Amino acid sequence: MKAIVSIIMGSTSDLKVMEKAAQFFDEMEIPFGMNALSAHRTPEAVEIFAKNAEADGIKVIIAGAGMAAHLPGVIASMTAVPVIGVPINASLDGMDALLAIVQMPPGIPVATVGINGALNAAILAGQMLATGDSEMMNKMKNYKEGLKQKIVKANEELTRVQYRFKTN
Amino acid sequence: MKAIVSIIMGSTSDLKVMEKAAQFFDEMEIPFGMNALSAHRTPEAVEIFAKNAEADGIKVIIAGAGMAAHLPGVIASMTAVPVIGVPINASLDGMDALLAIVQMPPGIPVATVGINGALNAAILAGQMLATGDSEMMNKMKNYKEGLKQKIVKANEELTRVQYRFKTN
Amino acid sequence: MKAIVSIIMGSTSDLKVMEKAAQFFDEMEIPFGMNALSAHRTPEAVEIFAKNAEADGIKVIIAGAGMAAHLPGVIASMTAVPVIGVPINASLDGMDALLAIVQMPPGIPVATVGINGALNAAILAGQMLATGDSEMMNKMKNYKEGLKQKIVKANEELTRVQYRFKTN
Amino acid sequence: MKAIVSIIMGSTSDLKVMEKAAQFFDEMEIPFGMNALSAHRTPEAVEIFAKNAEADGIKVIIAGAGMAAHLPGVIASMTAVPVIGVPINASLDGMDALLAIVQMPPGIPVATVGINGALNAAILAGQMLATGDSEMMNKMKNYKEGLKQKIVKANEELTRVQYRFKTN
Amino acid sequence: MKAIVSIIMGSTSDLKVMEKAAQFFDEMEIPFGMNALSAHRTPEAVEIFAKNAEADGIKVIIAGAGMAAHLPGVIASMTAVPVIGVPINASLDGMDALLAIVQMPPGIPVATVGINGALNAAILAGQMLATGDSEMMNKMKNYKEGLKQKIVKANEELTRVQYRFKTN
Amino acid sequence: MKAIVSIIMGSTSDLKVMEKAAQFFDEMEIPFGMNALSAHRTPEAVEIFAKNAEADGIKVIIAGAGMAAHLPGVIASMTAVPVIGVPINASLDGMDALLAIVQMPPGIPVATVGINGALNAAILAGQMLATGDSEMMNKMKNYKEGLKQKIVKANEELTRVQYRFKTN
Amino acid sequence: MKAIVSIIMGSTSDLKVMEKAAQFFDEMEIPFGMNALSAHRTPEAVEIFAKNAEADGIKVIIAGAGMAAHLPGVIASMTAVPVIGVPINASLDGMDALLAIVQMPPGIPVATVGINGALNAAILAGQMLATGDSEMMNKMKNYKEGLKQKIVKANEELTRVQYRFKTN
Amino acid sequence: MKAIVSIIMGSTSDLKVMEKAAQFFDEMEIPFGMNALSAHRTPEAVEIFAKNAEADGIKVIIAGAGMAAHLPGVIASMTAVPVIGVPINASLDGMDALLAIVQMPPGIPVATVGINGALNAAILAGQMLATGDSEMMNKMKNYKEGLKQKIVKANEELTRVQYRFKTN
Repeated sequence: MKAIVSIIMGSTSDLKVMEKAAQFFDEMEIPFGMNALSAHRTPEAVEIFAKNAEADGIKVIIAGAGMAAHLPGVIASMTAVPVIGVPINASLDGMDALLAIVQMPPGIPVATVGINGALNAAILAGQMLATGDSEMMNKMKNYKEGLKQKIVKANEELTRVQYRFKTN
Repeated sequence: MKAIVSIIMGSTSDLKVMEKAAQFFDEMEIPFGMNALSAHRTPEAVEIFAKNAEADGIKVIIAGAGMAAHLPGVIASMTAVPVIGVPINASLDGMDALLAIVQMPPGIPVATVGINGALNAAILAGQMLATGDSEMMNKMKNYKEGLKQKIVKANEELTRVQYRFKTN
Repeated sequence: MKAIVSIIMGSTSDLKVMEKAAQFFDEMEIPFGMNALSAHRTPEAVEIFAKNAEADGIKVIIAGAGMAAHLPGVIASMTAVPVIGVPINASLDGMDALLAIVQMPPGIPVATVGINGALNAAILAGQMLATGDSEMMNKMKNYKEGLKQKIVKANEELTRVQYRFKTN
Repeated sequence: MKAIVSIIMGSTSDLKVMEKAAQFFDEMEIPFGMNALSAHRTPEAVEIFAKNAEADGIKVIIAGAGMAAHLPGVIASMTAVPVIGVPINASLDGMDALLAIVQMPPGIPVATVGINGALNAAILAGQMLATGDSEMMNKMKNYKEGLKQKIVKANEELTRVQYRFKTN
Repeated sequence: MKAIVSIIMGSTSDLKVMEKAAQFFDEMEIPFGMNALSAHRTPEAVEIFAKNAEADGIKVIIAGAGMAAHLPGVIASMTAVPVIGVPINASLDGMDALLAIVQMPPGIPVATVGINGALNAAILAGQMLATGDSEMMNKMKNYKEGLKQKIVKANEELTRVQYRFKTN
Repeated sequence: MKAIVSIIMGSTSDLKVMEKAAQFFDEMEIPFGMNALSAHRTPEAVEIFAKNAEADGIKVIIAGAGMAAHLPGVIASMTAVPVIGVPINASLDGMDALLAIVQMPPGIPVATVGINGALNAAILAGQMLATGDSEMMNKMKNYKEGLKQKIVKANEELTRVQYRFKTN
Repeated sequence: MKAIVSIIMGSTSDLKVMEKAAQFFDEMEIPFGMNALSAHRTPEAVEIFAKNAEADGIKVIIAGAGMAAHLPGVIASMTAVPVIGVPINASLDGMDALLAIVQMPPGIPVATVGINGALNAAILAGQMLATGDSEMMNKMKNYKEGLKQKIVKANEELTRVQYRFKTN
Repeated sequence: MKAIVSIIMGSTSDLKVMEKAAQFFDEMEIPFGMNALSAHRTPEAVEIFAKNAEADGIKVIIAGAGMAAHLPGVIASMTAVPVIGVPINASLDGMDALLAIVQMPPGIPVATVGINGALNAAILAGQMLATGDSEMMNKMKNYKEGLKQKIVKANEELTRVQYRFKTN
């Protein structure tokens, strides 16, 4: 089994946000790697990772970071493999991380998801892989179908909430 | 008893905000429906609801949503029944939901109330109904009259707070 | 002809924003009044207007204001007629006006539309009137239908834009 | 004893913020009144208060309010007695209240202090009174002198904090 | 003629905002001084000004500043004469100046007006002076009365705006 | 030639932002479609487009929208094809559009790029396609290589800027 | 032992943020002073400190402050010794302090670090000292080298986190 | 003549902001280098520059960048030479660049100045150099002294502005 997706984070404290991505890949049976690398503390390790990612068979990279979040953009500057950025709320409600990830200059995009949105990052990775893999496309379509069940169930729960003037 | 107002929310976790609207309708004896529908997970169910709302006798729709809150706007795009949007604080103090609801493009208004303002949404619904229903107008006028009592009482409580140099 | 909707603004300089509402009422053949009243400079005139609005046959009030925009809320505190607030961009990109209008305390809602959104305010007024007026409902449905034409036309224009690798 | 300053708030829940002003007036032996009045729920009571304030001997008014905080501006529109506004943090970290109080249109100023800054509002009231009352000016100068003691004491505490390379 | 109010600004480029205050004092016949002093470039001059203000007969100080606007707070730390702060929009729509002026720590208030609100600062100064000067109070009441005329005139102008369905 | 990427926008006025994406696809020789569809005005057309996208051979969708920008999220809710969202600056410096696009709820990601970032959206689309297409990967690597030339040239220009104490 | 760096804060309550700077100087064996001084309450003490700093052998000053944080800028206006400003989160998530420190006018820079960033302030002080002190430069290089170990360790921890489809 | 300071920018379009730094170094007779390097487009060139800076005799680095401004932080991660970051206003009034530069994680400070504050960056560089160079300290003290003249002159200009009730 060889990883086709990489989850990168700046420290183990980010794991409580990023583990949602790992759990999704387990559920979808997508082999992945997971590493702590820091754009600021281990720039050489980031460089080695990014420059070898394509040759190592990595097809999508997910990078989570907080504050002045440079990790996703720095990786994106060193590889043509698409990078998904997850802004982590470590200060200012995550607004600093969101802007530091999404406002990339022309030429080097980072596919940004919402603040703390690691699950959405993983789903997006699955959708990217599906552009060239019809089996993955089927998995993603099934997953999306499954989302409806939560709402259907929520609706049923609401049916049981009692008000005098509620009609359903 | 047939609902003339609908309360829509994206999940049962929104109920703790939205129940204030339900309680108001109970107090005012206005029959209402309540459903969990998601603009993103069950778009077909939203469409069926919105397109049938007028024929079903619904005169006002209240929709609460958080984050990139699309639900009120999506419903408003599919019906001429007025839609009241309640931005729910799920991230960024609710500022993302407020902007995603209130800043609708020309042609498709959503009547937006304050963050977590489900009670105000329900009062506004009552006032909208009152434009064509004089009995409802009387209810709303009585309700507004009642609001003064809370302040009068608060003022009496302040009278009892003791300071050496307080004169009343 | 007797007005059933009122457009209120704080000064004639707001007319360039608010005239979109007047034009819509002309187009829809909805009789309306239009006045300059200031929550801060002519509070007595505001009070007289607001307290008589219902008796004068006004069914919906639209109030536009900028900066610390108190006008919509002050009117709403003095009548049970529904008030639609239009935040006007006079400073801080209109964010001050938006917050000063939408964040009303429990009990006194203002139906807020987007910054400078006078057209949407007028459409919303039409939808409110339609809750008790089926002819108005038909007008509003026709109007919404008409919105689609702009997009259809826009799409046709895009068809004529030429790119070498564009397929439609 | 007749009040020369008034503290106005929208509800008793604001008392935990506004009591700092009352305590300051007690400490300075400045007679004051304290009332709960709401710009939105009891506009008539606000009007009666504001229009009689000058004749009643009130020389400065302090008004605290949260959210779309209209109370200080509404009072200021009805009297020439100076009004000090205290933005209370009830949502959005108090930013909505700050903007709704400070961004008054030309002609009707509100002297705004920081978010939850009731103590500063009371000191400012004392300074305003001191413009025409030399005894009050002496009180205010003594009070300001006293502020230095807190810092001197803080500095002494820091002297006792031990670090190996700390030289003082 | 001896100044009883001081207008302080950081540079002559601020004059185009601050001149509104000077014009108001001329109109009200209130003698005033006007100086360029910088909290950051001429701290000693600021100190000399602030420490002598009371003895020089100054009863209210107006200080305008942009960006990290320290001038009003620095003056307020050196005198018991009340200081009115005018946030000047030099960057970030004036939000930096507003926060740097209004968010003063407990003990040292600055009476803050809206962004670029020099006219309101001058009116507020007049109201402060009026707390101990009944002639000034009459001037201020007359001035406030005059504000209504602008709105009355605006309303008359609106009367002349023609729409087919406009009823007034 | 059959489109494998779709560029969707809400009106032709968005073309001046979105054309950067079209130009990139021309340069990369990637066949694409381009349509004006509105989440709010033509919801049925959006639905037809989104539900057929995969069957029509579309592998990536780029959707640009301003204000309360629902278009990318609404499309993403109806297809498993990955959607790239471009926030367009139509108000509030584009902050409303950014938040309304990026803050999607769990389950329905939108790959968001910077405000007005249509070129980056197109590059990201190319990178997504490259996950399953090695020829595309080569194109993208060449493109990224080309970006360096602009900087190298900029550096040469700086060499020619003359200062007395400049050493290079 | 004579201090070459000074840590200044407005009150002992700031010590829990600023102590990170003191600990760093202990670790690096850099002698430092630590004082509580307030720009607003003890302006004379601030002036004496700032004007004597250079003669007292102080080479870098670190000043932490919250809210309308004037302390760093006020010190910087009175000395040519470089001043590092630490915005302390006391309100508005620290955004007010950040803007009040960083947005200094031309001529008087404050070297600003992140919100609550006292450790980074101390490291920056070390780097400034190192511009003229090669032994200090070696210390700083060693410190930076040490930062990598935390990430390497974090990466090892991640290796031990188990997922079914995790490959490393 | 060998550069002891480096000015780095991402493109020649940044020169109109950054040239203020170059002019200051000319005025102070401080030899400097100036280069266009991009964290995202030429990461290798950035690395070579940063890793050789100290050995090349560079004592302070000034880096200006806009949007998701990574350049200062990326350089700071690769050298112990102090880095001064200049947020350039390219979008969102420069707020994105400010946050992306100042909110660095613990261990890797960037000395941040105000938005577009290239002159202040250069002055700060001079002050850093002065920590180990008494001649430079004298230059900086003279420069700071000179700043006062601008204000003195401004004050003289204000003396000539005529108002009827102006006393100076």
